[in-house]
Amino acid sequence: MLSIDSNRLWNSLMELARIGATPKGGVRRLTLTDEDRRGRDLFVGWCRDAGMTIEVDAIGNIFARRPGTDPGLAPVTVGSHLDSQPSGGKFDGAYGVMAGLELVRTLNDAAMHTRAPIEVAAWTNEEGSRFVPTMMGSGVYAGVYPLELALAQKDIDGVTVREELQRIGYAGAAATHPMSAYFEAHIEQGPVLEQHGTTIGVVRGALGQRWFDVVLTGQDAHAGPTPMETRRDAMLAASLLVVDVNRIATTFPDYARGTVGFLQVRPNSRNVVPGEVRMSVDLRSAKDSTLTAMVDEMRRSAQAIADRTRVAIDIDEVVYFPPSEFAAALVDTVRSGAHARGYSHRDIVSGAAHDAVYLSRIAPTAMVFVPCEGGISHNELESARAEDLAAGCNVLLDAVLASARVG
Amino acid sequence: MLSIDSNRLWNSLMELARIGATPKGGVRRLTLTDEDRRGRDLFVGWCRDAGMTIEVDAIGNIFARRPGTDPGLAPVTVGSHLDSQPSGGKFDGAYGVMAGLELVRTLNDAAMHTRAPIEVAAWTNEEGSRFVPTMMGSGVYAGVYPLELALAQKDIDGVTVREELQRIGYAGAAATHPMSAYFEAHIEQGPVLEQHGTTIGVVRGALGQRWFDVVLTGQDAHAGPTPMETRRDAMLAASLLVVDVNRIATTFPDYARGTVGFLQVRPNSRNVVPGEVRMSVDLRSAKDSTLTAMVDEMRRSAQAIADRTRVAIDIDEVVYFPPSEFAAALVDTVRSGAHARGYSHRDIVSGAAHDAVYLSRIAPTAMVFVPCEGGISHNELESARAEDLAAGCNVLLDAVLASARVG
Repeated sequence: MLSIDSNRLWNSLMELARIGATPKGGVRRLTLTDEDRRGRDLFVGWCRDAGMTIEVDAIGNIFARRPGTDPGLAPVTVGSHLDSQPSGGKFDGAYGVMAGLELVRTLNDAAMHTRAPIEVAAWTNEEGSRFVPTMMGSGVYAGVYPLELALAQKDIDGVTVREELQRIGYAGAAATHPMSAYFEAHIEQGPVLEQHGTTIGVVRGALGQRWFDVVLTGQDAHAGPTPMETRRDAMLAASLLVVDVNRIATTFPDYARGTVGFLQVRPNSRNVVPGEVRMSVDLRSAKDSTLTAMVDEMRRSAQAIADRTRVAIDIDEVVYFPPSEFAAALVDTVRSGAHARGYSHRDIVSGAAHDAVYLSRIAPTAMVFVPCEGGISHNELESARAEDLAAGCNVLLDAVLASARVG
Repeated sequence: MLSIDSNRLWNSLMELARIGATPKGGVRRLTLTDEDRRGRDLFVGWCRDAGMTIEVDAIGNIFARRPGTDPGLAPVTVGSHLDSQPSGGKFDGAYGVMAGLELVRTLNDAAMHTRAPIEVAAWTNEEGSRFVPTMMGSGVYAGVYPLELALAQKDIDGVTVREELQRIGYAGAAATHPMSAYFEAHIEQGPVLEQHGTTIGVVRGALGQRWFDVVLTGQDAHAGPTPMETRRDAMLAASLLVVDVNRIATTFPDYARGTVGFLQVRPNSRNVVPGEVRMSVDLRSAKDSTLTAMVDEMRRSAQAIADRTRVAIDIDEVVYFPPSEFAAALVDTVRSGAHARGYSHRDIVSGAAHDAVYLSRIAPTAMVFVPCEGGISHNELESARAEDLAAGCNVLLDAVLASARVG
């Protein structure tokens, strides 16, 4: 059984992590900055050294191709992203790209040929920290966003994506092409695999997301002279809604999640009953029907709270991101590959979105998760074990070979 | 039955309100500013016109005295404050001082003499907006704060109370003197009288207050990949505590009140489970034993929430202000006076603190409340009806005469 080189994978990750390295051991490689350019150049150089040809498209996505023996077959693509959060880690995104490169190097060393070409993709601006939206490159590629809209996005200094792509030399002209399959390896960014002592997460899809802005309007009043029964306390109403969002998320099925991450109080003075609260609600589930039922229940709950507290509650939906279900055949391949290698594994659903979510709209797609320490990500402390990263890469190798077919 | 001049009282209030008048009909007369000086000068001039003598003490409290016929008796003092909130109203504080002046003018017109002297006091810096603490002048007078501490307080620009008192000419030398009684008339600053259609609030005392800073420490986590059961959500824990603070305040007796007016979330990002919340808790009750029981119940509740959510909850008490009970005989005088005049009245407990709360520690004290529109105060929209203000002033007149005794 062909296996990848764990040390080579690790060393590539560590060398890449020197670009934009932060004092605490993390990475700051914001999309389309000089650090991103240096990361891209390093990756492209390594791919050329591995005999691959490079194409770049108009939104800066990089495709490094190892030819197949059957010129009529669409490539099997593996990939992820090279950009990071402002205080990001060494593995988020970088692992998926380096794992693709490593499996090509392994095939080269074994002089093994595949019928379909193998392609390693680095998608532009997955993080969305400098330019919104997130997953910009894969989104444009999959037709979710118009190219022109993405190119015109500006960072906080007013610089556009178009200008930065040209400046760093990654404004290409490659056309969109079919893929016979898309695989992405990624750290879990959550605690599940680590808590279960599991090496491989067989990702069945990604949770749907519905995000809301909620404004609760009561009446400012002095905390001292205002009896409880005459108050219209926006803070109390908001708190009841937070509790209900959590109740809904813990009682609904299909990996239901509910979070109030943002909350702002006015006037926010200790002896004034708050007249206004603004808060976010983030509801997620693997099933769209469940997600809809959760939203209905939240709206019912909000109405009951409004009636009880005499606080007006306005709920505005700002993001809807349907659940993704990955290609069953490819998910099976990942699962059986992990089993054949003797790795502990479990089915999992991605709580966060990844480039694979958009790719799944245009190509059969699957993902491989490996544990990260404490589930911590988007943080300089993000960490993963070399043996887990290697196991994920081996599973990726087997899955790619099963799709691209040796020969 | 001698009655005050409603028009004269109203006109004095309106003329005073021109000093520091704001476009929306309110007043900005921050303590020890030029506006405060002009307000003080106007009051002192009016008192001199009414034949009163003026003394000022070292913290700038003004005492205007109408002599009594028995030189051995301590004065009956009425008063309140002339300073305002940054966006304050025309009646908060000003009413109590002008009502004192009006009853002296009324006695002058009737050539009526009292055995005890009558004194109208204007206490320095009740609001505490520019210099902390609130109720500085009455607090120093009652021995709650050392004079030197108060004089050394600085505003946001580093200017001291001592400097400003000297600059505006109100750094006096009058000694503290006994009072045979202290009365204060004030707008309610709450909704109770208006809601009951009542003219006179017979104030039996003021609620005790216990203020807390609460820090809830959980663990930041991504809203997507983190299952509900592994979270340590500080926002959920804080919300449960807010709900419990309200439950405690609505179930405990003795005018119990509970407010979370301030709450701050970290990192406050919509897709991150919050790792930290800082919030205030303000508990009030008219009985100290009830207040203690409320605090005990809040601590038990917080412990249960901490256990359930695995979020650490640290509770730090920052203010303790015991309940005040005003002098029963004087409260009876106010009640029977309102009754004799045929004014609707009800017993009430002040939810907020007033200068009278500190004075009650050194002299028999009572307060008279009149309604304010919508219970709104500390706001430019603060409003009160001339007839209610006159009724309160008549009740004050009767109570002062009962204490100072005609003759």
